Amino acid sequence: MPNQRNIYLKMKPLETAREIVFERFAAPASPAIEMVSVPEAVGRVLAAPVFARLSSPNFHSAAMDGIAVTAEQTFGTSETSPRQLRLDQDAFFVNTGHVLPGDTNAVIMIEHVNDLGAGRVEIEAPAFPWQHVRRMGEDIVATELLFPRNHVVTPYCVGALLSGGIFDVQVRARPRVMIIPTGSELVDWRTPEAAHLKPGQVLETNSFVLGGLVEAAGGCFERCDIVVDDPEHIRAVVDQAVEGDFDMVMTVGGSSAGSEDYAKRVVSELGEILVHGVTIMPGKPLLVGDVAGKPVFGIPGYPVSAIIAFEQFVRPLLRRYIDQPDIQPETLAVETARKIPSKLGTEEFLRVKLGRVGRRVVAAPLPRGAGCITTITEADGILRIPRNVEGLREGEPATAELIRPSGTIDKTLMIVGSHDNSLDILADEIRRGASGLTLSSSHVGSMGGLMAIKRGVCHLAGSHLLDTTDGSYNRSYIKKFLPGEDVRLVHLVMRDQGLIVPKGNPKGIHGLEDLVREDVRMINRQGGAGTRILLDFRLKELGIGPDAIAGYTDEEFTHMAVAVAVLSGTADVGLGIQAAANALNLDFLPVVTEQYDLVIPGCFFDGFGIQVLLETIRTDRFRQRVEALGGYSTEMTGKILPI
Amino acid sequence: MPNQRNIYLKMKPLETAREIVFERFAAPASPAIEMVSVPEAVGRVLAAPVFARLSSPNFHSAAMDGIAVTAEQTFGTSETSPRQLRLDQDAFFVNTGHVLPGDTNAVIMIEHVNDLGAGRVEIEAPAFPWQHVRRMGEDIVATELLFPRNHVVTPYCVGALLSGGIFDVQVRARPRVMIIPTGSELVDWRTPEAAHLKPGQVLETNSFVLGGLVEAAGGCFERCDIVVDDPEHIRAVVDQAVEGDFDMVMTVGGSSAGSEDYAKRVVSELGEILVHGVTIMPGKPLLVGDVAGKPVFGIPGYPVSAIIAFEQFVRPLLRRYIDQPDIQPETLAVETARKIPSKLGTEEFLRVKLGRVGRRVVAAPLPRGAGCITTITEADGILRIPRNVEGLREGEPATAELIRPSGTIDKTLMIVGSHDNSLDILADEIRRGASGLTLSSSHVGSMGGLMAIKRGVCHLAGSHLLDTTDGSYNRSYIKKFLPGEDVRLVHLVMRDQGLIVPKGNPKGIHGLEDLVREDVRMINRQGGAGTRILLDFRLKELGIGPDAIAGYTDEEFTHMAVAVAVLSGTADVGLGIQAAANALNLDFLPVVTEQYDLVIPGCFFDGFGIQVLLETIRTDRFRQRVEALGGYSTEMTGKILPI
Repeated sequence: MPNQRNIYLKMKPLETAREIVFERFAAPASPAIEMVSVPEAVGRVLAAPVFARLSSPNFHSAAMDGIAVTAEQTFGTSETSPRQLRLDQDAFFVNTGHVLPGDTNAVIMIEHVNDLGAGRVEIEAPAFPWQHVRRMGEDIVATELLFPRNHVVTPYCVGALLSGGIFDVQVRARPRVMIIPTGSELVDWRTPEAAHLKPGQVLETNSFVLGGLVEAAGGCFERCDIVVDDPEHIRAVVDQAVEGDFDMVMTVGGSSAGSEDYAKRVVSELGEILVHGVTIMPGKPLLVGDVAGKPVFGIPGYPVSAIIAFEQFVRPLLRRYIDQPDIQPETLAVETARKIPSKLGTEEFLRVKLGRVGRRVVAAPLPRGAGCITTITEADGILRIPRNVEGLREGEPATAELIRPSGTIDKTLMIVGSHDNSLDILADEIRRGASGLTLSSSHVGSMGGLMAIKRGVCHLAGSHLLDTTDGSYNRSYIKKFLPGEDVRLVHLVMRDQGLIVPKGNPKGIHGLEDLVREDVRMINRQGGAGTRILLDFRLKELGIGPDAIAGYTDEEFTHMAVAVAVLSGTADVGLGIQAAANALNLDFLPVVTEQYDLVIPGCFFDGFGIQVLLETIRTDRFRQRVEALGGYSTEMTGKILPI
Repeated sequence: MPNQRNIYLKMKPLETAREIVFERFAAPASPAIEMVSVPEAVGRVLAAPVFARLSSPNFHSAAMDGIAVTAEQTFGTSETSPRQLRLDQDAFFVNTGHVLPGDTNAVIMIEHVNDLGAGRVEIEAPAFPWQHVRRMGEDIVATELLFPRNHVVTPYCVGALLSGGIFDVQVRARPRVMIIPTGSELVDWRTPEAAHLKPGQVLETNSFVLGGLVEAAGGCFERCDIVVDDPEHIRAVVDQAVEGDFDMVMTVGGSSAGSEDYAKRVVSELGEILVHGVTIMPGKPLLVGDVAGKPVFGIPGYPVSAIIAFEQFVRPLLRRYIDQPDIQPETLAVETARKIPSKLGTEEFLRVKLGRVGRRVVAAPLPRGAGCITTITEADGILRIPRNVEGLREGEPATAELIRPSGTIDKTLMIVGSHDNSLDILADEIRRGASGLTLSSSHVGSMGGLMAIKRGVCHLAGSHLLDTTDGSYNRSYIKKFLPGEDVRLVHLVMRDQGLIVPKGNPKGIHGLEDLVREDVRMINRQGGAGTRILLDFRLKELGIGPDAIAGYTDEEFTHMAVAVAVLSGTADVGLGIQAAANALNLDFLPVVTEQYDLVIPGCFFDGFGIQVLLETIRTDRFRQRVEALGGYSTEMTGKILPI
C-alpha cells in the first residue's frame, strides 16, 4: 500500500459533534467593530445600542395645508356663529411640514377656511388643540433607544437612524474566514490549464461555493491558491492563516481517512482535533480542530458534503460570532413520492424536488451521491432522515427544509416520466415572462411516468410507449394502466430514435443486426423505458434474442447517459435520440420515428400552470428551438389527441 | 391664498391603479445584459439559459480508496475461492478521485484487499461493474441545461456552473432608478448644515431608504442632490433622468395636492399622468406618470407613505423588469389585540407588533401616522384592512404580512403597560448573546398593562399602581383586576417621580402647590397611568381640585412625551421620571419615590423567554446601566414579591 492511511476518531452523532464545537468556540469576548455610514450599514449587525440624538420632528409642524391658529381662540365657533381671524396675527397660512408659528397649536384645513380678503379669514368650526399638527418628538424623542445592540439594519432603519440624527453606526466586523482548497488534482478555473483539462484534473469549485455561503451568513472570506497534497505545505498555510487575523480556517478536501488525506495530520500537529467523522450523509468526513483557540475545519471535498458540513458547523459558528441566531430554513409538510430506504445509524440529508400536487406537497428524492452538485442545485428542499430510522414509506408525512421559498414551490410543475431534450427547451421557455412558473422534471421512463400519475405525485408525464400490436403510442397503455382515470393526451414531438455510435462509426455498425456481433457491446435503457420497449419490439421482429447481445443488461436512465457511455467507450452503441448524439458530437443512425406525448390528469388540465405550459409549446419559438436540436418534427405539437 | 392648489385626479383603488401601471409598463423587449464571472453572479438573474460545456466528472474516477479492477475478471471470487491479482496489470491502487486506469470499471475498497507483497493482492469477493466508480457525466453531462433563463444564481449554483465548464454568465443588468428628493425644507445629512438644524429644516432620509429598497429588489439607483420646491428645476432634473439611461424615475415629496406640490405639474408637462391618488393609507398621494415611455413616480414625502407606495408600485415593476415575481412577504395568522377601527373606502396598511402569546399570535397595532418611520421600524408585520371593511374586532382572526421572519416573532417577549426608561436598557441587554430573544414594548399605562394580561395579549406587564389606602404598589390592583389569575410579581426598580421643568426652572416651580398658579400650565398623563394616579393621590392630600390646574386635561402617553412638551414650551411643568428630564437636559424636582414592578402570568413564568429576562435584570451590568440613568435604585431588582 503506497501510504499510511488515517483512521477516523470515533464517529460522532451530529448533535454531539455540534455541542463539542459550539461549546469550545464561544463568540469572541471583544469582537471587532467597524464604523460605517448609516446607508452602508444595511444588512449589518449593530455593535452597540443606538440612541436618538435628535427628535423627529424637531419642531411642531403642520400636518395639513391650512391656517395655524391657537385652538383656545377658536372655541365656541360654529356655522351659526362663525369667527373672523386676522392673518399673520391670529392665523397664519401654513403648508404641510411648515413650522407652527408663535403660540399656535392647531391647524385648520384650507378646505375649511374662507378667505375674506383684506388680511382676514373666516372659520365655521372650532379647532381642538394639536389638531393636524405633527408634534415635536411624535416620531422620535432624542435620547430614546432607536435600536438595541445586535439589531440587523434594514433599509427602513436607515430612515429612523438618519431622522434621529445618527449618521454613522458601529457595526460588528464580518468574521474573516480563510478558505484553503487542497488537492493535487485541482485546477483553478481562472488559469489557462482550465481550458483543456486532462483526465484526472478537476476544476476547483468548492472554495467559491463556500465563499458565497460565508458571505450569505454575514462573514467575509479570503481564498488562498490551491495547495497540493503535501502535508508540509498545507500545514504552513493553515499556520499562517491562524496566526493572521482570520477568525476561522477551512481546508477543503483531504479531511477523510485516505492515504492522501492530510487534514487530520496537519491539525493534530498544530493543535487539537475535536471531531473527526460525523454520522451524517453527506458530510461524514468532517474534521474540526482547535488551533491556537481558533476553529480549523477540514471540509470534505465532495461538493454536497462540503455544503452540509458548512451549514451544520461553520455557518452556526459564524452567526454566533456576530451574535445572530443561525439561519433557519423555512419548512413545509410534505409526503414522499416513493419509498426511501436509509442507512440506520446515519442521519441523511436527502435532497428532494417538491411540488404541490393537488392538496399535498410531494417530495421526489434526487440521486444521493455526495459528489453530485446538481442534486442540491436541482433540489427544492432537504428531508432529514434521522439516524434511528431505516427510511421513509411511500406517502409518509415528513418535514422538508426548503431551499427555495414555498411560494416558488407552489408554482412548480412536476413532470415525471421519459426524458426528452425538448423538455430542457420547455423548462427554459416557460421561464420567460413573469408567470413565476418552473418546470421540474424527474426521469424515470415512460411507465414510471404513468405510475406517478396513478399515484398522484406529478402534474404531468412524458411518454412514448409503443403498442406493439397496432403501432400506436400511449393510448392503449393509458387505457390499461390508468383505467377510468380522467387524463388528457397532448402531442409534444415526433422524434427519431436510432443508434448512437462514436464519431466516424469505427466499428461499422449499420443496424440493430450488428448488436449480436462479438466485438460490439451495447448500453441499454432501463425496463419500462419507451426506448427499451421499442428496442425489444424491433429485436423480436428481427428474431434476435436478448441473450445474444453483449451489454443488453447494462442499463442507463436517460438518453444522455447512453450517449455518455458511448462517448466514454464503455459501450460501442446504444439506442437513443439524435439530440443526445449531436450534443456529444457522436454519430447517429436513425432507426425509427416515434411519438412523444404529454399525459395530463384532467384535474390539472385547466389550471394556470398547465395552460401556460400548453401556450408555451404552441409558440413558434419553442418549435423552432426544438427542431434546431435535430431529429425532431413539431408539426403537430400541442395537438390534443384522442384516447 | 398664496398659491394655486392642485386637485387630485379621481382617486383609484389599489388594484385598479396597479393594473393601469403594470399594463402600461411591460418589461423592456430587449433588456440590458451584463457578462459577469460566475462567483460574482450570486444573486443575479440569468439572462439566457446556460448549458454545460464540460461533463462532470469528465472521466471515470474512483469513488473510494482501493484497487481498480475489471469487474468481469473478478466474477466467481468468494471467501472459499479467493483470487490473486497482479498489481499494475489486473489491479491498480487508486485513491478517491483518481482516474480509473485502462479498461477497469470497478473499485474494490482498500479494506477488502489483502496485500500479499511482491506485486500481488488478493480479493475474496467479486466486484460488480461500476462499483465505487464515479462515472463520467454522473453529475453533469456536457450540453445539458444547467439553469434556465431567469434563474437566480445561488452559491450552490456556482459549483454546478464552474463544474460544467461555465466561467462567465450573462445576467440581467440591474434596472436603474433615479431618485430625486424634493423639498425646500430638506437638508442633506452629509452637509455641515445637518449639525445644527433650524426649526423648519428636516433631514432628507427617504431617498436613502428607497435606495436601499431598490437594491433589495434587484435594482440599482442614483440619488441626485436635493431639489428645492421649484417646478422648473424639478422638471429639468426629471427630464434629464428620463433622457438618460435610467429605467425609472422617482421624485420624492410634492406628490400631493398642496400649493407647493409640483410633481403633478412637472409630469403632466413632460408626459402623461396615469394615476394621482390611490385609496390606500399610508400612500394616498402617489402619482404615476409616463414620460417618454418611462415610468415616473411621484412618491409621497411621509416616510411610511413612501415605503408603501414603493412596495405596491415601484418594486413589482422593478421585479418585472428582471422577469422576477414580486417579493412575497411571509404571512402569519394572527389575532388582533384590540378593536381597530378603519376608514371605509380606504385600504389601510396597519403596522403591528406581533408576539406568540400562548397558542396564538397577537397583533398589537402601532400608531398610524404616515409621518412616523418608527411605526414601521418597530413593526413585525402589516395587517391590510380592506377598503370595504370598517375595521377589525378585538380578537378577530387576520393575516399579517411579516416584516421580520416568523422565527423571530416566536422569540419576541411582549411587554405592555407603563413605560420606564429601564425597559430600553433591558431591551438592549436582552439582545446580548445568541438567545435570539427580542423585547417588544407597548406603552399603554399600568392599568392598560393589567388589562392586556387579563385579555392574554402579552407576556408581561410593567406597572407602578399605587394603592392610595395603604401606600402599597400593584398588589391590591392585581387582586382586584386579575382575581383568581395565576400571576407573579417581580420587582424591577425604585424610581423617583418628580416635576419636570425647563432648564433653570424659569417659573420658579417648587412643588405641586405651584400647579394652581395662573402663569403655570401643566401637561398630564393619560387616565390609568400610574403617574396620573400618583398625581391625583398627592393633589387630594393637598386639597387641590383638578379644575384649578391649567392643562390638567392635556394628556401624554409617556414620560418622554411629557418631557418633550416641557422642552418645547407647550407646558411649563409635568410629572415624570428623572431619566426623562435628564435625557432632554431639563430640570427635575423629586416629589416621591415609587415602585415599578413586572407582572408575569404564571403560565409564562418558567418559559425560556421570561427566564432569560429575569437573569438579565439580575445582572450587575443591567443594574449599573439603570442606576446611571439617574433617579433609580436597583437594590431589590429581580426580587419576587408576595401578592
